[in-house]
Order: sequence, then C-alpha cells, then structure tokens
Amino acid sequence: MDYEKIFKHIYEELEKIENKGQVADYIPELSMVDPNSFGVQLTTVEGEKYAFGDSNIRFSIQSIAKVFSYVLAYSLVKSDLWDRVGVEPSGTAFNSLVQLENDRGVPRNPFINAGAIVICDILVSELQSPKEEVLSFIHELSGVNSINFNHTIAKSERANGFINFALVNFMKSFGNIHNDIDDVMDLYFNICSIEMSCEELSNSFLFLANNGVVPYSGAKILSSSRTKRANALMQTCGFYDEAGQFTFKVGLPGKSGIGGGIVAVHPMKYCITVWSPPLNSKGNSYKGMLFLEEFTTQTELSIF
Amino acid sequence: MDYEKIFKHIYEELEKIENKGQVADYIPELSMVDPNSFGVQLTTVEGEKYAFGDSNIRFSIQSIAKVFSYVLAYSLVKSDLWDRVGVEPSGTAFNSLVQLENDRGVPRNPFINAGAIVICDILVSELQSPKEEVLSFIHELSGVNSINFNHTIAKSERANGFINFALVNFMKSFGNIHNDIDDVMDLYFNICSIEMSCEELSNSFLFLANNGVVPYSGAKILSSSRTKRANALMQTCGFYDEAGQFTFKVGLPGKSGIGGGIVAVHPMKYCITVWSPPLNSKGNSYKGMLFLEEFTTQTELSIF
Amino acid sequence: MDYEKIFKHIYEELEKIENKGQVADYIPELSMVDPNSFGVQLTTVEGEKYAFGDSNIRFSIQSIAKVFSYVLAYSLVKSDLWDRVGVEPSGTAFNSLVQLENDRGVPRNPFINAGAIVICDILVSELQSPKEEVLSFIHELSGVNSINFNHTIAKSERANGFINFALVNFMKSFGNIHNDIDDVMDLYFNICSIEMSCEELSNSFLFLANNGVVPYSGAKILSSSRTKRANALMQTCGFYDEAGQFTFKVGLPGKSGIGGGIVAVHPMKYCITVWSPPLNSKGNSYKGMLFLEEFTTQTELSIF
Amino acid sequence: MDYEKIFKHIYEELEKIENKGQVADYIPELSMVDPNSFGVQLTTVEGEKYAFGDSNIRFSIQSIAKVFSYVLAYSLVKSDLWDRVGVEPSGTAFNSLVQLENDRGVPRNPFINAGAIVICDILVSELQSPKEEVLSFIHELSGVNSINFNHTIAKSERANGFINFALVNFMKSFGNIHNDIDDVMDLYFNICSIEMSCEELSNSFLFLANNGVVPYSGAKILSSSRTKRANALMQTCGFYDEAGQFTFKVGLPGKSGIGGGIVAVHPMKYCITVWSPPLNSKGNSYKGMLFLEEFTTQTELSIF
Repeated sequence: MDYEKIFKHIYEELEKIENKGQVADYIPELSMVDPNSFGVQLTTVEGEKYAFGDSNIRFSIQSIAKVFSYVLAYSLVKSDLWDRVGVEPSGTAFNSLVQLENDRGVPRNPFINAGAIVICDILVSELQSPKEEVLSFIHELSGVNSINFNHTIAKSERANGFINFALVNFMKSFGNIHNDIDDVMDLYFNICSIEMSCEELSNSFLFLANNGVVPYSGAKILSSSRTKRANALMQTCGFYDEAGQFTFKVGLPGKSGIGGGIVAVHPMKYCITVWSPPLNSKGNSYKGMLFLEEFTTQTELSIF
Repeated sequence: MDYEKIFKHIYEELEKIENKGQVADYIPELSMVDPNSFGVQLTTVEGEKYAFGDSNIRFSIQSIAKVFSYVLAYSLVKSDLWDRVGVEPSGTAFNSLVQLENDRGVPRNPFINAGAIVICDILVSELQSPKEEVLSFIHELSGVNSINFNHTIAKSERANGFINFALVNFMKSFGNIHNDIDDVMDLYFNICSIEMSCEELSNSFLFLANNGVVPYSGAKILSSSRTKRANALMQTCGFYDEAGQFTFKVGLPGKSGIGGGIVAVHPMKYCITVWSPPLNSKGNSYKGMLFLEEFTTQTELSIF
Repeated sequence: MDYEKIFKHIYEELEKIENKGQVADYIPELSMVDPNSFGVQLTTVEGEKYAFGDSNIRFSIQSIAKVFSYVLAYSLVKSDLWDRVGVEPSGTAFNSLVQLENDRGVPRNPFINAGAIVICDILVSELQSPKEEVLSFIHELSGVNSINFNHTIAKSERANGFINFALVNFMKSFGNIHNDIDDVMDLYFNICSIEMSCEELSNSFLFLANNGVVPYSGAKILSSSRTKRANALMQTCGFYDEAGQFTFKVGLPGKSGIGGGIVAVHPMKYCITVWSPPLNSKGNSYKGMLFLEEFTTQTELSIF
Repeated sequence: MDYEKIFKHIYEELEKIENKGQVADYIPELSMVDPNSFGVQLTTVEGEKYAFGDSNIRFSIQSIAKVFSYVLAYSLVKSDLWDRVGVEPSGTAFNSLVQLENDRGVPRNPFINAGAIVICDILVSELQSPKEEVLSFIHELSGVNSINFNHTIAKSERANGFINFALVNFMKSFGNIHNDIDDVMDLYFNICSIEMSCEELSNSFLFLANNGVVPYSGAKILSSSRTKRANALMQTCGFYDEAGQFTFKVGLPGKSGIGGGIVAVHPMKYCITVWSPPLNSKGNSYKGMLFLEEFTTQTELSIF
C-alpha cells in the first residue's frame, strides 16, 4: 500500500479542521514545543519504512516510556508482578487516588502513573543501575545509542510532581513501594523525560509486532505469549480513560504520551507512531487520535 | 487444525483442577443447572464446525444477549446513541451505581447492566414490537426460529431485580430513560432470559467475524467499520471488571453471561462459544475462562 | 427578651440583601408558593409564644416530617433500629447512592432520604394503619387535628420520585427493606406532603426541648436520654451536607425541609420555626438559615 | 455534684467489661504505653477540679492538638480560612484521599489530617517561629511552661507518615499548600507529638467553656461568637467518622487523639478529659467513649 500517500491525504484532511487541543503547559519545557509539529512513521516487520513530516525530530515521549519500563520489568521478574499491579483498565483519570484507596494501594495497571511508579520500584529492586539499564534497554530496542534522558525536563517534572509524590507516598503506606521514595521517583521522572523521534519509537516498538523479537537484530525480548499480553494490556489500558474510545475508533493496541506522541502496534504487521503536541481533554494527542482513526478506517488495517 | 482434538485435550487438563466456581443461585431456575455441563463450539467463517460435549444443549445466555440488543440498536439509530451510553470500560462491577452518579446517569458502555437498559429504552422507542423484533433478529442471525424467551426466568429475574430497578430509576432521574420503566424492564428481563446452545451462539455471532455479513445467508447486518467497533467494544467491555484479564489472557473480543456461557470472536477467522455454569468471583465462567486461555495459547490464535 | 422586636429587626436587615435562593420547582405544587412568604414562631417550654409574619400559614413541611417518623419509630422499636440505619452525618447530598453502595444498603442516618425510607419500612412493619397513625401522632404532638397530608403533592412526589425509587430498590437488594416497595413509598411520599404552619411546627417539636414531654398535655413521648439523642441527631444530620455549617453558624439542633421551613430546638428553653421558600444550593431555606444565624448571634442563645 | 464518686463508680463498672480496644502501634513509642492507664480530670469554669486515676500523667495528645492549632490560626487570620478548609463532617475515615479528590484539595474540616495540615500551612505563613509560638500558646492556655514536643515521637511519625505526605502533596497539587512541604510537615508532626496530662488538657480547653476567656488569667483568646463556633466544629467534626456516635451518645463537643485521650467541653460549665490508651476500630479511646457516655447519662449534663 502507498502509505505515504495516505499519510499526506489524511494530514491534509486534518488541516481543514480546527485543532481544539492544547499543548501541555504544566512544565515550561513542554509548553515551548511548536504546536504545528506533525510527524508520522510506519515501520513494517519486514523492514519497510514510511515517513511523513517531522518524523525525525525528537520529542518528549513521556508516558510512552511506561511501555519500555513495563516490558523490562516483565522480562526480569517471575511471579510477584501481578500481586503489585493489575491488568484492568482504570475507568478513571491517569492520576486518580480514589481507585488506589479502594484497591488498597494496588494500581489497576502498569500504564497509569501509580502503576508505572510500582514498575519503577520493581526496577530499583532488580537492577544495579536502574537508569543506565533502562537506557541500555531502549538503545537495544531502537539501535540508537544517542537516545537519552532530558535532565531539565526530569527536574521540572519533579518540581511539579506533587500528585505523583502523593501517589507514591500513598502506595508506600500500603506497603506496595519497597524502596526509598526518592530513588523510585528519580527513576520515574527520568524515564518520563526520554526524548525520541517517531522513527525511533516505531523501530523500538517493532518487537511487539514481531512475536517479541527485534527484527533487525534478532534479539528475543519477550516470549510470544508475553508479547501477546503486552499488546493486550496496551489495548485495554494504553489511553487512560480514553482506552475504550481508542480501541473503538482506531482498533489497535497503543500508548500515548503527554508530549503528543502515540505509538500503535498491528501484531505481525507494523508499528506506527504519530506526533502532534496539542492534547485533547483526556491528555491524548488531539490530531494524533484523529489521524490513527482515519488511517485504520481507510486501510481497514485494525485488528478487529 | 484438529480443533476437536485440542478441545478434548484442554477439557481433560481442566478436569484435573478443582472447579472453584459457583453456579449462579440468585434465581432458582439458574441454580438448578447441572454444574458439570460443558460444551464448546467453534465455527469458522468458511463454514467449518467443531464441537465438543454439550454443544447442542440450550442454556440461559443472560448477558451475552446484550450484544444482540446493542447491535440491533446500533443498526437502527444514527446519531444519538453515544450521548446516552459510552464506550469506556467501567473499571467497576457490572451493577455499580457509583459510576452512574459520577457520570450523571450515562452508563459507561452498553454491556454493563445500566448500559443494556438504556439500549432497551432505545429499542422501545425505535421498534413497534420490541420483544418480537429482537427475537426475529436473533432468528435471522442464527437461522433457528425456535430460539425463544424463557418466561419463567424472565419473571424470576424481575422479582429479584431490585438493583436493576434501582439503576433504571436512577437513570430516569437524569432523563436518560425516555419510556415507561415497566416497558423498558419487561424487554430487558426477557432479553436476558433467552436460551441458546453453543452451536446457535457461535453461528449467530459469526457475522462479527465476517465484516458484518451473516456467512450462510449473505445478510449485511453492520458495515465493516461498525463491525470492527462492535468487536472493539467487546474487547474492552465484555467482561465487566475482568475485561482486562480476559484480553490479557485470552486475547479475543468476547462476551460472557451469568449462565456460564462465553462467546469469543476472532475477526476474519472464527467464532467460539464455551459453556460451563460455575462462575468465578467476577461472575464469568470459571472453566470457560481457563478453557479459552488455553485454547488461544495452544493455537496461538489471538488477535494480539 | 423581646423576641418579636428582634424578629422584626432581623427581618428588616435581611430585606436589604438579595435573596439568592430559588423556590423548589421539581413539582408544580411547590413552585407555585409565594417566594416572599416569611414566617417565624418561637414557643418556650413555659408556654410563651412569639410570632412574626406568616407564622399561621401552612406550607409543605417535606423533610421536617422525617423527625416525626423517626421519633415514632424510635418510640416503637427496641433493638434493631441501629442495625438498619446509622447516626453519622453523610458528608454527601441528601439523595446520594454512592454512600449506600459503600455501606451495603445501610443509610448513614434517618434524615437523609434513604434513612427516612428505612424508617417508613419499620413503621409499615410495626403499625396497623401507618398513614393514619403517623397523622395521629402529629395531632397528639401539635394538638391540632386538622393537620393532614396533601394528596396532590404526594402524587406529584411519587410521579417524580425516581431517585427515591432507586434508593428503595437498591436498599431492598441488600435486604434492608422488609415490606413491599409500594407500601413503603406510599407512606414516605404521604409523610413528605404534610402541611403545617410555623406555629404548629414549633408546638409539635416542643417536647424535644422539654425532656420528651409535651408541655401542654404532659404526654411523655420519649425518655430524657432518647430525647437528648434525637436532638443530637438533628445537630449532626439535620441539614444534609450543610449540617456542619448550620451547627457552626446557628448552633442549635434542627431540621430543614425543601418547602423552605426550618425548625430548631434549644433544649430546656424553646423551639423556633422559620419559613421562607427560596432555597440555597444545598436545598435549605436561604433566608431561614441567615435568620437563625442572626437570631442566635444576637441573643447568644446557642447551645455552644 | 460529687464528681469523683461518679468517676470511681463508672470506672468500676467499666472494669467489668472486656476492653476490646487496641493500643495504637504504628509507631513504637505509642505501642509501649501501659494499656491500663486511666485518668480523668474535670475542671469547672468556677475553678473547681475533680480528678481520678492517672490524671497527672502526661501522654501523647496527638490529634487533640489540632484544636490548639486551629484556634491559633482562627485567631490570626481574617477572611481566607474558609476558602481553604471547610466546616462539614467528613463522613469518612480521618485520612481519606477520596474526598479530597472530589473537593479539589479543600479538606472538609480542620480536624481531619488534611485540614490540620492546611492549618499548619497557615501558621507557617502567619508566624515567625511557628513551633515556638504554638508551644507558647499552649503554655498560655495551660499555665504550664514545661509542656513540650516529644522529638522522638515527632521523628517516628515523620518516618511512618506516608499517608500524611500523600495528603500534603495532593493538596499542594491543587494549590492549597502555600509553603514548602517539609516546613509544613515539620510543624504538623511536632504538634502531634505534644505531651500533656488530663489535668493540663482540661485547664487548657477551659476557655472554650468560658466564652473564649481563660478563667484563671482573664486572657481573651476568641470572641464569644468564635468560641461558640469552635465548639460547634468539635461537635460535628471532632471524632472522624464517629462524630455522630459521640454526639448521639455523649452529647458534648469534644476532640479525641490516637494516644487515647478525649477532651469534652460543656459550654458555660466545665471541661472534662479522659485518658485510656486502647482504641476502638474508629481510632477513638474505647473506654474513654464509654466513660463519657455513662458520665453524661448519669449526670444528665449534656448540651442536648
């Protein structure tokens, strides 16, 4: 299929509608991003690549990184992961404390903030140098060693991260955080600060479309069964309280970030990444959501 | 693939583990079902059929019928459906009133009780003889005209349906029920009382695996896009607060009922129905869930 | 003290401020009340009476009647009352279902709707002719036999009482309603429809300021200890989620109704009733609250 | 009245019943208290004193200190206090985050943990040396300059105070904490660590029974109106989600602490303090509650 032509066509259609989204502005670094940035990258498991717009510009991947930390933790631990974090959609906003109170400190899934913090706690327990090893893992997935944390963003996130500190303290009161809070949150805020391009993200997520194997290196990251489950988790939990909408309209497992990026995976076929900074009221890229809806509708390439 | 051999193998494996489930007993009719009943039916879009055990015995399909009423309503109305019911997983039990209070009377999705009641209200508005037309619709999908309501069960459900009456009254207080409560609930309780076999269910759901077309009759029930969306909705909302678990472990869109039945759809491939009456703590068939998990693991036939 | 002069003075002060309240309009009968109606009646345990304005005009006492039904039930039953309804302030709106779900069908207190419905269920169990006996009880307290239900209002309440029907069905699902729902709700809606004047209300509540004894008849309604407890309950639970405000600003136990009436009791001293139909956002009389705040501030006659 | 005889009598009655309470054990310092400690002190506004048991032994007053910090803040600020903390009973446990989420970071009242933390934030804003000035204030109220913080307890509280850190971070995310979190929590944990005896507590609270004036020094702490309101607030909010029970059974405004102390005020008459370390399931002194219920029942000295 001529994907680049389709990208261009959908992009032009979206240009005609008003962008009702707002760029995230809770930290200065995110608010300064050009709201008109727009990039797309599709990479197939056979190695074909289709790009559009700002597909090579790095942006703050934010919560998309929660997939990396989750997969890494999932590959390290055996038994106790699901005692400490669930696999159910939350039905509430990404930072809700209500549910955590009802569920006695066990987050609903690894992709809401509380769950991603528990994953960081597991990584702090399991790894010698958690930050370095997370970065190495992403280098391995992407094949690009220059991918790095943005320390300015990590610092800003920490200075404004009161809700996240509320979450981690609350979970620690239930015994669901085993390490020192500062160590866990240092890892958490750094992971959120990673910067990658659409192309790098599509390449890095490709193992999830390929039975757990990185196509270009042959490295086995997860078993087939666990790969299937990681995709299933993105399907039900990847978009906070808009997971149902995304599944309904786009029909692919995926994960969004507050930097305006969305990665979606079509198992056995391809990985696609869109980047458009203005966010809808649920914190997901306004045009990114519309773009992917149009894309799977026009290509009829959803999993359903 | 020799599906019947796989069915037998998994069945024998499950025989070795203790069945921790409990047959539903809130109404006498359900409590009298033989807990050892066990049936499976897989039907492919090409028309192949694979059966095991009690695949031809009819049972109370209960909430599985919510897919029929939803699809019928979805095919009748144009614009206002999604103002009145959402497409997000609920994150709470099937009969929760809490969420309905927060969401001002708009149920999270059409597969929790509140949402299915709104769908019945829409059908009462749209149809001349709602009960008869729902039945005709199921006859069309299944090709079996003897499928019917069980009036004894409908009556028992009504006599014990205090939570459902709480839900409908509460939604009416928000203006989200347009018709007389008794008319809406009469349809609701009757739909829940329908009895079908595994074979009839698999045949009836096959259009969802076939782009919206009933394979043996050629009847177009839904557009491709709406079919995709119906499957997506089953994926995120088909199993109450166990939707994430089912997606995670089984990896197919599906719908369960408190009578112990589960239907799952593999788009473009097949439809599979399992029936085993004892339920787990979430109200889904205990062995049915395990069976489908084993089935998609052994065949590697999930959508993810 | 020259109470009537104080009444006049406060009334004139309140005339100068804008009345931001709104007359209840969910049923036509209440919406037709003259919003400028204003009455006050103070009756002391020694039998002195002080009146102002429309103190002799009857109005719909609505939830104020919940004190009568509660006291009657409290005087009839021995042990099981507090298993079925609590004595804690609700912290939420008068008709919340959320709390009822958390508390497994046991209402927080007898003065929120759910609690008053449980009280009606107890009266239906305990009394031969519940409606007649409740009316007789009020005749005994007030000494006025013409006090009656307003059947038009009771009928309107029933026709619009979807939330109350949600509450009663929900409680019945938890086993906390023992009688037929229609019987219970018929009593409930009739009790809410009772019409009395400020003078009649002050006289009827006077036993609560007098150790449980009706001053003019000598009839012992409640023991001293139970009288104290009834007053305590009005203090913490008499004004829905404004109970704290009323206690804080007025400092007397009391009960409000959506018809714009408020009764307050100063133990061992007096009973005072105010009536002004426009309601604040919490459903309590806008000017009635301000009047009583000024009254206890100027006379320094609060219990604290 | 021969109060000491009454104290002895009630004490002996309570000896006969099993103490179902548990001494607080979340920090080692509290868990080491002798569970059989039992002290009572009643002080009248005329200066009479009645003591029983361990009335002169100091214990950790914990949340009772929230009345001191609240009164001090209330005497310092004019207008903005009630924008930042409410006067309504919470209806939930003392450390709930749920309500705080619903109410956008504004605690229900100054006596739940979140509210007391906001009060500390106000004191940090208003005072040069908050800790010293709070201590001076208590010295002024009690007339005893040796009353002090217990730094070991304050340190233990901080080391285990994850829920409190969750609360303060959560409120800061809503903008309802103006100062540095560490400064606010240092004051909070120190205030909770203050140690006083029953006698010292009764003397210190006596101004609340005396129109805001310290009887023995003549110092005016609060106006009559504000004193009345402080008492009203203790009535509705002094015992977490057992405030209704305490009002219902004891009928006096009061405040409890997790160290097993309870102070109650009878306006214009007296102040009474009881100390018995084992706590009921709501975190209030098991025997202290029963003692005060018996006391006001036998003396008929409640405010209702």
